[in-house]
Amino acid sequence: MKLLEERIRKDGIVVDNEILKVDRFLNHQMDINLFVEMGKEWARLFGPENVTKILTIEASGIGIACVAAEQFNCPVIFAKKTKTRNIAGEVYSTEVKSFTHGTVNQVIVSKQFLKPGDKVLLIDDFLANGAALEGLVDLVRQSGAELVGAGIAVEKAFQPGGDRIRSLGVRVESLARVKSMDNEHIEFC
Amino acid sequence: MKLLEERIRKDGIVVDNEILKVDRFLNHQMDINLFVEMGKEWARLFGPENVTKILTIEASGIGIACVAAEQFNCPVIFAKKTKTRNIAGEVYSTEVKSFTHGTVNQVIVSKQFLKPGDKVLLIDDFLANGAALEGLVDLVRQSGAELVGAGIAVEKAFQPGGDRIRSLGVRVESLARVKSMDNEHIEFC
Repeated sequence: MKLLEERIRKDGIVVDNEILKVDRFLNHQMDINLFVEMGKEWARLFGPENVTKILTIEASGIGIACVAAEQFNCPVIFAKKTKTRNIAGEVYSTEVKSFTHGTVNQVIVSKQFLKPGDKVLLIDDFLANGAALEGLVDLVRQSGAELVGAGIAVEKAFQPGGDRIRSLGVRVESLARVKSMDNEHIEFC
Repeated sequence: MKLLEERIRKDGIVVDNEILKVDRFLNHQMDINLFVEMGKEWARLFGPENVTKILTIEASGIGIACVAAEQFNCPVIFAKKTKTRNIAGEVYSTEVKSFTHGTVNQVIVSKQFLKPGDKVLLIDDFLANGAALEGLVDLVRQSGAELVGAGIAVEKAFQPGGDRIRSLGVRVESLARVKSMDNEHIEFC
């Protein structure tokens, strides 16, 4: 998606040839007009699938997923990283390792919100090692719902996550796929 | 706001006369059509203030804030609960006690996103003890930006947060103010 690639080139910051910081417009400060255009692009790609639920993971996927959901006219569920006493009853649960924070989180979704018959689209801001997305895939499979695919904003295509998730048979649509990057240049696939 | 009050009566669950669970439509599964209407109501209330930034806190405020921001045509910033290596440079920082989780979090916003001259609207899903909102107020005051007010979805008016924040001189507009509640009935102000 041209608009997102141009924005990454303009406002993204590459640190140590490995970290791509997009906190000016994607995951700390959030450009809502950009999110609307991203939502329209995913609607073009996944619209015919009759999505009934969008599933994301806290925290930085939530804003993108909610704005995108307006194009799909369906609710958004966000997987929570810890079990709080405000979540009642039974939950689907999986473990997700965060490479950014160096931690392992238990990630849960209340069973009442994902059921067989649902057609689920995953949305997240980043795909790098694929751990978060694989966790979401696992939660959907536990629920018996149908997994329509995954809409990703930025895929670091030189890291293994995209291949891993696609090899599970999941349709992954990343709006910007970074082929390589350094302090001077970002190249897209 | 009638629509939100009716939804709370229909889908909210009161636990132990103290906890109001709204995870079917507000803070786990999220009803985006409802969020659009909430955004329109805040735009009616705060529209004349020429808001330049909306500030919320992870995680459950993010979706509401992003959908509401479409009415204000401005970016959203979410305050982050831990310092990660993906946040560069200097940050504004404050402490927020979570009564739900029984923890104290360091909450940060990158200094590059809040500046004198900004007119900031706070958005959050709940106002109970007011700790999170007071933290956001503190972050705005550190930045030198102007605080326009706070848009809250659900205020538990029988808890001290609303009075505390209003006594700081902050305009608080809660779309549903719960006066009292038990397992059988929820009464609004």
